[in-house]
Amino acid sequence: MRIYADNAATTKMSKTAIDAMTPYLNEIYGNPSSLHSVGQEAAEALHSARERMARLLNCEPKEIIFTSGGSEADNQAILSAAAIGERKGKRHIVSTAFEHHAVLHTLEKLQKRGFEVTLLDVHENGMVTPQEVADAIREDTCLVTVMYANNEIGSVLPIPEIGAVCREKGVYFHTDAVQAAGHLPIDVQKDQIDLLSLSAHKFHGPKGIGLLYAKKTIPLTSLIEGGAQERRKRAGTENIPAIMGMAAAFEEACAQMEENREKVTKLRDRLIQGLSEIPHSILNGDREKRLPGNAHFCFEGIEGESLLLLLDEKGVCASSGSACTSGDLDPSHVLLAIGRPHEIAHGSLRLTVCHWNTMEEMEQIIQAVKEVVAYLRSISPVWRDLQEGRRTYVIQ
Amino acid sequence: MRIYADNAATTKMSKTAIDAMTPYLNEIYGNPSSLHSVGQEAAEALHSARERMARLLNCEPKEIIFTSGGSEADNQAILSAAAIGERKGKRHIVSTAFEHHAVLHTLEKLQKRGFEVTLLDVHENGMVTPQEVADAIREDTCLVTVMYANNEIGSVLPIPEIGAVCREKGVYFHTDAVQAAGHLPIDVQKDQIDLLSLSAHKFHGPKGIGLLYAKKTIPLTSLIEGGAQERRKRAGTENIPAIMGMAAAFEEACAQMEENREKVTKLRDRLIQGLSEIPHSILNGDREKRLPGNAHFCFEGIEGESLLLLLDEKGVCASSGSACTSGDLDPSHVLLAIGRPHEIAHGSLRLTVCHWNTMEEMEQIIQAVKEVVAYLRSISPVWRDLQEGRRTYVIQ
Repeated sequence: MRIYADNAATTKMSKTAIDAMTPYLNEIYGNPSSLHSVGQEAAEALHSARERMARLLNCEPKEIIFTSGGSEADNQAILSAAAIGERKGKRHIVSTAFEHHAVLHTLEKLQKRGFEVTLLDVHENGMVTPQEVADAIREDTCLVTVMYANNEIGSVLPIPEIGAVCREKGVYFHTDAVQAAGHLPIDVQKDQIDLLSLSAHKFHGPKGIGLLYAKKTIPLTSLIEGGAQERRKRAGTENIPAIMGMAAAFEEACAQMEENREKVTKLRDRLIQGLSEIPHSILNGDREKRLPGNAHFCFEGIEGESLLLLLDEKGVCASSGSACTSGDLDPSHVLLAIGRPHEIAHGSLRLTVCHWNTMEEMEQIIQAVKEVVAYLRSISPVWRDLQEGRRTYVIQ
Repeated sequence: MRIYADNAATTKMSKTAIDAMTPYLNEIYGNPSSLHSVGQEAAEALHSARERMARLLNCEPKEIIFTSGGSEADNQAILSAAAIGERKGKRHIVSTAFEHHAVLHTLEKLQKRGFEVTLLDVHENGMVTPQEVADAIREDTCLVTVMYANNEIGSVLPIPEIGAVCREKGVYFHTDAVQAAGHLPIDVQKDQIDLLSLSAHKFHGPKGIGLLYAKKTIPLTSLIEGGAQERRKRAGTENIPAIMGMAAAFEEACAQMEENREKVTKLRDRLIQGLSEIPHSILNGDREKRLPGNAHFCFEGIEGESLLLLLDEKGVCASSGSACTSGDLDPSHVLLAIGRPHEIAHGSLRLTVCHWNTMEEMEQIIQAVKEVVAYLRSISPVWRDLQEGRRTYVIQ
């Protein structure tokens, strides 16, 4: 038995996505820039995938740039808005303290180039308010970048309201929708989003492909220079198999969204309920405004990495936070941003389930986590100190 | 009948490469950064692919960064060397006038940042000499970037000798080996290469994956910021299926290199021989030092795009030059660099064959090209002028 509960790190591809990709690995292998029929078959596929993605996001096909994934799209979105800002003498950016590193590290790069960045504090429930965004916007603000949903604690931010604030103030609004796309309904018009990043492997599509939506009035800067692909905004032979896999996976995810959301929410709620029974545990992220599949906890007196390894021995694949920062010894910047002190930020567990998981698996996960937490506490000197009153509980 | 003779644009994946990729699309779907067993299976695959690529290139595994393709690798190589140069006050780069646009456009970007770029003239046979490179290197030169083989006319440059010049002068040497990798033996130690880019879909591997080899003493700059993947030098979840496909394709290409080269050279030589019979035609690129599968011609009095479309109707998939610049009305910068005047640079044809092509197909291609060239000339006012002496032939 192996239970995969790490769908925020990556997902298993759906059969639909694999089937959509396969002919383009095998038979329809042309370069869409080639004028001959083998190339033009590929060009038609590319065209159709772009149209399908655009329809589902409610934008125009020409507003979509295919990238190698979410990180590349985040980088390009932010650097493009910064370049436009720079030309107008606007060198201030508003973001939040718990963005993905693809955003935060790009902002750090811009700070070195003289940009000023305001990182909004995040409330304990993993939220920033539209009013806080509004208050942070200045005359010289060229971009607001706020994630759609947090990749660790799963809180879903008030994106349409933040979009409205930015539109009103005339500031570009980018959202890293990597965790939300395919799981929550996204409409770039209604949500008033100017730039959006997504990644296929987070919604049962292939790895190595994502996209950047950019409103057509926004002149993008190329991150990768070279050929004339993607309206000269992203060089490199288009990855047609992966693009076809992404389009199929996104269509499937959007078509099944309500059904999946209902199912996954029930699984998640059972997890949250079951794990909340563990004494001195706390749920991270908003209880209601959270991704359907995300249950994220801190447990007092234990260390997340040991928890993961022992859970893995019991057949449960989980994470302590973001896969992208695994191997780091520092506690999660997300947990610090919502105010968790170091000592409990180290004892975190992220379970992210999908519609292929079952309620029986949830019971097995709950049982396994309870056992492992109990075991780790039984050998933890910190836990003994807590129990014997030499230390005070952070989580009551 | 359809004959694919555009392998420099992209190749059909080999069965070996597809078979190596498939399990990672289906079952082994983990994120290699995840600590659990599903993630660790992916991490092991990544590790093994890196080792295999390193062994074949004769470098260390840690000297390899997986990228989304050749263009990204070119960009990162050049920007990294430039950043190092900048810190030492060295802002001069040597390259050639017929590099791929992934190189040339990156150099233009650097020129806007104050770098000085010397683009070496290319001889009529598509060569630059090691001495010319040596002569162009200055005290403030931080990088020499010269392609291994040209993507249009197929000339193979004296890379080991240029490598030796650069090593002696203490200047970093990058080579865009996108067209050479898998087709010619590459040994980064023997060739004295410091930075090298390659792309899997040019040797029957998957699209959307390539790599940058960088000597371990060279501190790379990230092009894509974010997670800690690829020793923090290339963020984004690793594209394991494509990486596995690339490793398998490269192993296969290297194992069969001599055999394929012999076969493909014969096919190419027949093409060159047959097409040379067309009056007022000229082979571009060196007759001997050229890629095994490349036959590239200019035909006087015709227009390349019409030639391609009519060849396509006859079932022959060919190119006028680079796929990456298709749609451009400007003549190829490569043909201009070797001194072809505009009027004949427009009448170009690139045929690039592989080991799956047959001698029978070569005869069909020759027949088709002869017919189409004759037809196009029969309706060409330029050709009539040439025939009637109102214009002088460029190609005798």
